[in-house]
Amino acid sequence: MELLDKINSPADLAQLSYPELDRLAEEIRDFLVDRVSKNGGHLASNLGAVELTIALERVYNTERDRVVFDVGHQSYVYKILTGRRGMFDTLREFGGLSGFPKPSESVHDAFIAGHASNSVSVALGMARARTALGGDYEVAAIIGDGALSGGLAYEGLSNAGASGERMVVILNDNEMSIEPNVGGISQLLSRLRVRSGYLNFKRNYRRVMRRFPALYKFNHRLKERVKHIFIPDNTFSEMGFYYLGPVDGHDIKQLESALRMALEFDQPVLLHVKTRKGKGYPLAEADPAAYHGVGPFDPKIGVKKGGDGFSDVFGSELCRMARDDGRIMAVTAAMAPGTGLSPFSREFPERFFDVGIAEGHAVSMAAGMAKQGAVPVFAVYSTFLQRGYDMLIHDVALQRLHVVFAVDRAGLVGSDGETHHGAFDVSYLRSVPYMTVLAPASFAELRSMLHMAVRDINLPVALRYPRGGEGRYRDDLSSKPAAVIGGGTDVAIITYGIMTNEALDAADMLRARGISARVIKINMLNPLSAAQIRGMCSPCRAAVIAEDACAQGCIGEELRGELGCPAELINLGHGVVTHGSVPELRRSLSLDGEGIAAAAERLLSEVPDGKEET
Amino acid sequence: MELLDKINSPADLAQLSYPELDRLAEEIRDFLVDRVSKNGGHLASNLGAVELTIALERVYNTERDRVVFDVGHQSYVYKILTGRRGMFDTLREFGGLSGFPKPSESVHDAFIAGHASNSVSVALGMARARTALGGDYEVAAIIGDGALSGGLAYEGLSNAGASGERMVVILNDNEMSIEPNVGGISQLLSRLRVRSGYLNFKRNYRRVMRRFPALYKFNHRLKERVKHIFIPDNTFSEMGFYYLGPVDGHDIKQLESALRMALEFDQPVLLHVKTRKGKGYPLAEADPAAYHGVGPFDPKIGVKKGGDGFSDVFGSELCRMARDDGRIMAVTAAMAPGTGLSPFSREFPERFFDVGIAEGHAVSMAAGMAKQGAVPVFAVYSTFLQRGYDMLIHDVALQRLHVVFAVDRAGLVGSDGETHHGAFDVSYLRSVPYMTVLAPASFAELRSMLHMAVRDINLPVALRYPRGGEGRYRDDLSSKPAAVIGGGTDVAIITYGIMTNEALDAADMLRARGISARVIKINMLNPLSAAQIRGMCSPCRAAVIAEDACAQGCIGEELRGELGCPAELINLGHGVVTHGSVPELRRSLSLDGEGIAAAAERLLSEVPDGKEET
Repeated sequence: MELLDKINSPADLAQLSYPELDRLAEEIRDFLVDRVSKNGGHLASNLGAVELTIALERVYNTERDRVVFDVGHQSYVYKILTGRRGMFDTLREFGGLSGFPKPSESVHDAFIAGHASNSVSVALGMARARTALGGDYEVAAIIGDGALSGGLAYEGLSNAGASGERMVVILNDNEMSIEPNVGGISQLLSRLRVRSGYLNFKRNYRRVMRRFPALYKFNHRLKERVKHIFIPDNTFSEMGFYYLGPVDGHDIKQLESALRMALEFDQPVLLHVKTRKGKGYPLAEADPAAYHGVGPFDPKIGVKKGGDGFSDVFGSELCRMARDDGRIMAVTAAMAPGTGLSPFSREFPERFFDVGIAEGHAVSMAAGMAKQGAVPVFAVYSTFLQRGYDMLIHDVALQRLHVVFAVDRAGLVGSDGETHHGAFDVSYLRSVPYMTVLAPASFAELRSMLHMAVRDINLPVALRYPRGGEGRYRDDLSSKPAAVIGGGTDVAIITYGIMTNEALDAADMLRARGISARVIKINMLNPLSAAQIRGMCSPCRAAVIAEDACAQGCIGEELRGELGCPAELINLGHGVVTHGSVPELRRSLSLDGEGIAAAAERLLSEVPDGKEET
Repeated sequence: MELLDKINSPADLAQLSYPELDRLAEEIRDFLVDRVSKNGGHLASNLGAVELTIALERVYNTERDRVVFDVGHQSYVYKILTGRRGMFDTLREFGGLSGFPKPSESVHDAFIAGHASNSVSVALGMARARTALGGDYEVAAIIGDGALSGGLAYEGLSNAGASGERMVVILNDNEMSIEPNVGGISQLLSRLRVRSGYLNFKRNYRRVMRRFPALYKFNHRLKERVKHIFIPDNTFSEMGFYYLGPVDGHDIKQLESALRMALEFDQPVLLHVKTRKGKGYPLAEADPAAYHGVGPFDPKIGVKKGGDGFSDVFGSELCRMARDDGRIMAVTAAMAPGTGLSPFSREFPERFFDVGIAEGHAVSMAAGMAKQGAVPVFAVYSTFLQRGYDMLIHDVALQRLHVVFAVDRAGLVGSDGETHHGAFDVSYLRSVPYMTVLAPASFAELRSMLHMAVRDINLPVALRYPRGGEGRYRDDLSSKPAAVIGGGTDVAIITYGIMTNEALDAADMLRARGISARVIKINMLNPLSAAQIRGMCSPCRAAVIAEDACAQGCIGEELRGELGCPAELINLGHGVVTHGSVPELRRSLSLDGEGIAAAAERLLSEVPDGKEET
């Protein structure tokens, strides 16, 4: 790491020659593979963005200029070059560097990222604020071709193009996103990719014209005509962008001149950059999807298929059910592997629909399917279903349509952190009219509840389950809306889903301290059987309600006024939780066994033992 | 109404000649102007869609085929032709016809409508269900050019084009939506509008080719070349649609043949129809925006500017503030007149941003503005901000950005009904981290709270206020998070916003019945000052919490467990409320003065008078 060791800020890049920059790029790749193979993280997209990030830092002053990343998977190289190389070993660890851009971490990080397709909208807002308030800085958005499948990106591009604002949208086109993307823009891009030479022509043309300024204006119409020969109007130019590209995203010199040229325009520019996901690490180049997000692995051997988690159990059970039930349709928003739907996509390709990063559309499309007698099952991460909130209410709920939502990554997700925790689903799903919300706590319950959701509940229904696998609780008590585990009489620990394991741990700890606790496990979060739970709670003089959900709109809020005994709520608070391992995060929030036990003890000490006193 | 009187179902249209159909169209227009001028409703878009709807009913069998309307403002003609002419006098009235498509009202209504841009997604879902389940029906979506500015429409078109499914998207292009629309597709459409003759060429070409089938295949490549001369690739064909049009939307014969031709393709077709909003009623043709949604008016004189409501007070106060504060930026999603922002748009055009029907983008763009020091104020209807839920959390809240949300049409909106009530904002806004939610109850409070929101609260902040004007309560008690009105000691009526008037009525009624009630008015819904409200409540032995918000996640849920006395919650239940006048709806929900008083009386009769007994 002869060169990389000397790069402590972007300014150090200015000293290097192009051959040195190419060597630096190789060193960064080695560094990335080494570190990510130890800690896990997003590898393939960073390998593809090494040269682009170097060029960006040589052209922009990212302390002052605002460079907005989309999704942010590809921000590792950026972090390495902007003074965070020394902390890189802490990436995605509790208390360490975030795996995504984060303004609170560095002045170079212009905006938060994590959810797709927002970067152009955010950059446009920044450009407009600059113009209105008289600021002096450049604004750029870097967006992948995958994120272009989201309607938000279309809204942003459409508005940015019409705005006339000076800004650059850098399209990092690696010809795939997480999954090969679908329809629309991707067809345009494949057409654009085959062209070449246009950018060179344009550069030479401008150079000549600059020597003969009088000709420049005169030749404008001619230029526009020539442009139409080389590049027919495309969607981007129709939207109001000056289109530049495509540029080889692994040629630092070409990238630099394209970036500098883009800054010469006093209008929105779209710079089309072609990169290769996984570039430079043969295993990732061969199977970039497998190296998108990885856990720790041996760089010589490569990643191994992970063990069974809730996602896999869901996917294989859905396949089993679909063999007998032709009504079942599986829907994903660019997350087939993550949600466990890959086997379904292979076995039932005609009933499998990957809509791209378009959760809103997925919900509305599923509503249309349900209206005509199909049973769509939309498997989606809790945090991404937030994009479909309006469609849940308007398209699904108002007509009480039978759409099944397999809400994966509910609760804490771990090292992806605050943009990815499933902290809000309990709150927003409860507010959707007629929505049944089920919370399986084990693989067996996930299977049973999936059957209930598809066969028995003829209304909107959501199953929320966590990232990863099951814990000590492996039973199936799903036949009732709520169930009691253990017969304690001092305190009730009310919980649901994967938190059941922490509640059982807490009950064990309390028992060791002479306190008998009963765990009440809620299976159906909505509608809530408050009266039944009150009855289950009645032998106890206090209750702790523990949830991996945000406080506002949580089950504890609804239940607390109905329990008939003092209750303490432990949950994710406002829902903003940092990154780290799930056990670390639970501990920090007092949501682990020890935290729950401590809350129960404290509460009992405050509540007089009514049964003995009266 | 010689002809219209005979049309009792779509089948009756088959008997009429084209000249008779043209006369029928005129009769329908007279009928529309007459009825809508009496009851109010959406006029201009229906006047523009008369011929299109007639042609549609002659080509499609809408009992079996599924025709999905977008937004649904233009569904009146459809209702008139599908057996609902006789009930048309009840349109938008309590218990009467809905102003939007509603499957529970007629088998002809394929899907609900109200929120924009979902129709293509829904229709694609229907087409896919048809194909997967082996159904035998056609599917069409009718979408206006305004709705195309929404990213959901782009997601739908992009997926539908790629799907290859047999379906027709009918683009009802009236060259404006509610407001002239912005960027993107609108630029494409203006280019497409100037072409002509292509459809005729295509029809003739097909006719000739059908006579010589051998030539057909042979000529396919030639045909595609000719096509590229007449119509260069446009976004729709890039997306995978066969593009047909543009067609004169007021020529029934031409419309019919175009619709029939569209059905000949076994792939997605986009039929581009040009219509004129307000067609046939000169006042509406001259100013279609003024006749988009109207109250009752004299058809000879035209609509008059309505009186002052919360929207107007908001708009003029924001203008006043913006004169001294250059940081203020106003944002709207195609709703400048509705949200009271028209004066701002005229006085500060450089700080006014209409993004089209793109609420998600508006939120993300505002976040970018706020990050760079501006103070964006996004004025938006409660029901439409649902589209921005994810962006509220991800783009605004995680970075604690100071964006102001002027949430108009919160609570019951009246005759627009279930797709438009602002029933969910209290619930979803509370779940957004760091979000302050204020509830002005009078014009004076709206002004004060707007100042607080812009000047004092350096975090995400929302003001929720209703459609229409203020009631008997006209004070300004906004300086504290909650305030007591009246010193009653028997029962507390806890409420906020416009419901304060009903609470005051209830207190009067109770006083007449010998019960002393105090009204506790919450000004800041989030964060909630539960301890303070508990204190305010303490002299009373029971409380009624009355809200124009859905039950799940409402303030009453949060407060109930903290009050220290029995509390009854009255609210919008699951949030699905029919159409009718707001007083009628409140009465039906026991949310008016009488309903609240009755609840208080009932509750008091169940709660022993502790103060006297102990």
